[in-house]
Amino acid sequence: MHNFVTIEGCEGVGKTYQTKLLRQYCEERGLNVVFTREPGGSDIAEQIRKIILDANNNEMDDMCEAFLYAASRIQHLKDIVKPALSQGKVVICDRYVDSSYVYQGLGRGLGLDKIVRLNEIAVGEYMPEFTVFLDLSPDNAFLRKGGADQNDRMEAVGYAFHRKVYEGYKRLIANDPDRFEVIDASGTKEQTQAKLREVLIRRGVLK
Amino acid sequence: MHNFVTIEGCEGVGKTYQTKLLRQYCEERGLNVVFTREPGGSDIAEQIRKIILDANNNEMDDMCEAFLYAASRIQHLKDIVKPALSQGKVVICDRYVDSSYVYQGLGRGLGLDKIVRLNEIAVGEYMPEFTVFLDLSPDNAFLRKGGADQNDRMEAVGYAFHRKVYEGYKRLIANDPDRFEVIDASGTKEQTQAKLREVLIRRGVLK
Repeated sequence: MHNFVTIEGCEGVGKTYQTKLLRQYCEERGLNVVFTREPGGSDIAEQIRKIILDANNNEMDDMCEAFLYAASRIQHLKDIVKPALSQGKVVICDRYVDSSYVYQGLGRGLGLDKIVRLNEIAVGEYMPEFTVFLDLSPDNAFLRKGGADQNDRMEAVGYAFHRKVYEGYKRLIANDPDRFEVIDASGTKEQTQAKLREVLIRRGVLK
Repeated sequence: MHNFVTIEGCEGVGKTYQTKLLRQYCEERGLNVVFTREPGGSDIAEQIRKIILDANNNEMDDMCEAFLYAASRIQHLKDIVKPALSQGKVVICDRYVDSSYVYQGLGRGLGLDKIVRLNEIAVGEYMPEFTVFLDLSPDNAFLRKGGADQNDRMEAVGYAFHRKVYEGYKRLIANDPDRFEVIDASGTKEQTQAKLREVLIRRGVLK
């Protein structure tokens, strides 16, 4: 979908910070770009997310969770993404279908094929024009955080899981190389930001 | 799935009453049959249903609704249906995937094919061994209710919609005749109940 861009990456890669810098850049230049992430202020999508994230719902079936994520995605599309695109705006969405492919399909082991088919039904033609992958291996992300820290979220979930997620992204990129713009995120924050802007300018969504 | 039976029919056909009579019959004979309907006392499924049914959520995307119904179905399967079947019990479920096919796929116009694919991913092998369709045309259901009554739910939703639902069921039956047991529900309640028991006994789920 023209003007629709998604950003993906493993936890610890600095995705939130990079998006914030990019937003400032766009605001300073008066560029008409909508930054969002699911549920993104959609009231119904937010209600759905609450059920997923409620710690009391630990008996939730993994596939039920995948359907709820997709339901929330559909409503976020309707309420936030589609209106902005139809007004000619650029939409940059922090995480989208690829996160479901990797986290539910591969991380939870539901099967990539099922989660892809599920999301095809959910989003239809609303696939991103391209997807930026901020590439930092779990080893590098781990080192960057200063090694073994008991309070670190990376540590809490476990290195093996992050390794699986990272390899999942690499598999998606190999399957669909034309859709992905892979950015090396192992340098400084400023270097990564410069690469990110370069890609968005080259692809014609930013000036 | 062996021992898993679903009951379908248009509104006004007397499905709830027939199921109640059948339940009494089973209880009197000490038959180990679980009667359920979604969300069926599954806490998470109930939370999902609340979002669907909340009158404030009238901006809900139709496909989002279909995903939420499927999510609720998955959780109801996990919490209620699968444990009962694994204990060797018969499970009779009031409405299941066919209701989604007809109401969301055809009634809402989302497309039968999409809703079938969605529910295939949701329920997997947990398709009913057979499905009883209580067959009463909207014309007959309307007459039975005493014709034009402003407070009548049939009237409120509209005859054309009920016609579409009924024809939708007929289409499903034509597509998959082996799965359906069609019961003429145009006679008295007692006649319909007798036919229903006869089918369940013949198919070996009741004694």
